[in-house]
Amino acid sequence: MKDKSSILAVGTVAIDAVETPLGKRDKCFGGSASYFSYAASFFTSVKIVAVVGDDFPAEYRAVLEQKGVDLSGIEVRKGEKTFFWRGKYKGAMNEAETLATELNALLAFKPLLALQDTQPVLFLANVDPEIQYKVIEQKKGSKFTVMDTMNFWIQNKLETLKKVLAKIDALVVNEGEARQLTGESNLIRAGEALRCMGPSHVIVKKGEHGVLLFGDEGFFALPAYPVKDVYDPTGAGDSFAGGMVGYIAKTGTYDFATLRQALIWGTVVASFTVEDFSLERLIRLKPDELQQRYNDFVKIIRL
Amino acid sequence: MKDKSSILAVGTVAIDAVETPLGKRDKCFGGSASYFSYAASFFTSVKIVAVVGDDFPAEYRAVLEQKGVDLSGIEVRKGEKTFFWRGKYKGAMNEAETLATELNALLAFKPLLALQDTQPVLFLANVDPEIQYKVIEQKKGSKFTVMDTMNFWIQNKLETLKKVLAKIDALVVNEGEARQLTGESNLIRAGEALRCMGPSHVIVKKGEHGVLLFGDEGFFALPAYPVKDVYDPTGAGDSFAGGMVGYIAKTGTYDFATLRQALIWGTVVASFTVEDFSLERLIRLKPDELQQRYNDFVKIIRL
Repeated sequence: MKDKSSILAVGTVAIDAVETPLGKRDKCFGGSASYFSYAASFFTSVKIVAVVGDDFPAEYRAVLEQKGVDLSGIEVRKGEKTFFWRGKYKGAMNEAETLATELNALLAFKPLLALQDTQPVLFLANVDPEIQYKVIEQKKGSKFTVMDTMNFWIQNKLETLKKVLAKIDALVVNEGEARQLTGESNLIRAGEALRCMGPSHVIVKKGEHGVLLFGDEGFFALPAYPVKDVYDPTGAGDSFAGGMVGYIAKTGTYDFATLRQALIWGTVVASFTVEDFSLERLIRLKPDELQQRYNDFVKIIRL
Repeated sequence: MKDKSSILAVGTVAIDAVETPLGKRDKCFGGSASYFSYAASFFTSVKIVAVVGDDFPAEYRAVLEQKGVDLSGIEVRKGEKTFFWRGKYKGAMNEAETLATELNALLAFKPLLALQDTQPVLFLANVDPEIQYKVIEQKKGSKFTVMDTMNFWIQNKLETLKKVLAKIDALVVNEGEARQLTGESNLIRAGEALRCMGPSHVIVKKGEHGVLLFGDEGFFALPAYPVKDVYDPTGAGDSFAGGMVGYIAKTGTYDFATLRQALIWGTVVASFTVEDFSLERLIRLKPDELQQRYNDFVKIIRL
């Protein structure tokens, strides 16, 4: 039996605490897989593989269920707590200062895929590359695999990370990670060097400066959508990936032209994410608002 | 008698010394008006108003003369030396470290416009805002005035700078200056705040991240042209402005649609400037190469 979802997303489902110049939340819904799957669910169906503790709030679960996200792959570990992250942003909010990371249930995360996990698209959010590698080995029927990572793994698990890179189709990283992974300060050279490590498509996220795409058919650069009030940048990258991969999975084609288009959708979804804390703005987002902002954005950037 | 040139450019003509990770020059041609007018001369005719010492090399003069730049507005001060700047760039070369600034002849710079200086377009490169203000007061027949500035004047001559801002049509600044001038960390808010200070068009340069345009008819964002080998970023901003203002002056129209197009030309010209030291790459640049890169760039960014 095939799973009806088109994306399998492996990542974190978390409880966050966030402070920015425009406000704070002592406890809110977070995690890479949460943002990713909520964003992707505007385009297609997603199944999450993750782990939480038995403190994980039912209302957070309901947030994703209401968007049709398949949560059957979320393991609930009894007597343990959910992964917790506390962070703070200052000034232009380009980077989070991590104040606390409590891995909790995440320490025992060993994703076991089900027989029916034959989704054509696999998204590996930022987790230990050893976990990412084991998921790729288990995954059947994958036509397009996208991964994210972070500076910690580049610094501490580079060899495993390189093994994963050799097996994926698209890499999503931010500009600092692109430079760190390649040793190239020029982002164009960095993007090309990353393609040489395996993925045929490399997406470099630059926050307020937009995003770059390096692919087999060339290069594409896209500015960010102009957001005036950034309340909380947490999850912007994950929901960018969600919009992008969601659009790709919906079309079922994996070429350069589709990825260019997917970058626009990812940018538009992420522009909503940052307009409020946690998933709050995404939860209020209606499909026609998304379409309207897409239209507005295209008007801004079209030559 | 009207001057035949369409742009009057007031700025510096200098001797530079530059070091970057890819090489160094102990003595080379520099200055904001030099880069600006050379870049603009691909589109239209330019007259420079500047001051140099009697050490100013004849071969630098010949560089501009060969492009038809009118140098009759350059005052040569006997017994004085030309403005000298020494700078160094590291890593991603996003910012220069100034090692030496010798103002020399520039200290006595008091631009006196001629009766025939009735060019429709006026460009005020980065000089003391008091000088910029006095030029605006003298200038007859100006239809479109564009200015640049820098952090030093924002910090030390803010009140005069604000008087100049109130009298111009377009401001060109980099992202740091935009934030500094407005106190807004969000660039979209900063751009709008700058428009409230006077200029109906504001252009925010972001180096490798492209450029933003805030205008009466909305907002436009343009990525940078992907340059792999940046040899020397000196003059990138001035030649961006040269390409941009050159294109505007050539069309003779000053609306948002023209400025959008002008940003593309400015970006393309500046992408050549950084490919070698000083004006060296611009000097080798042929009009058909410029057109070819424009075509390539449009292919990259067109949706």
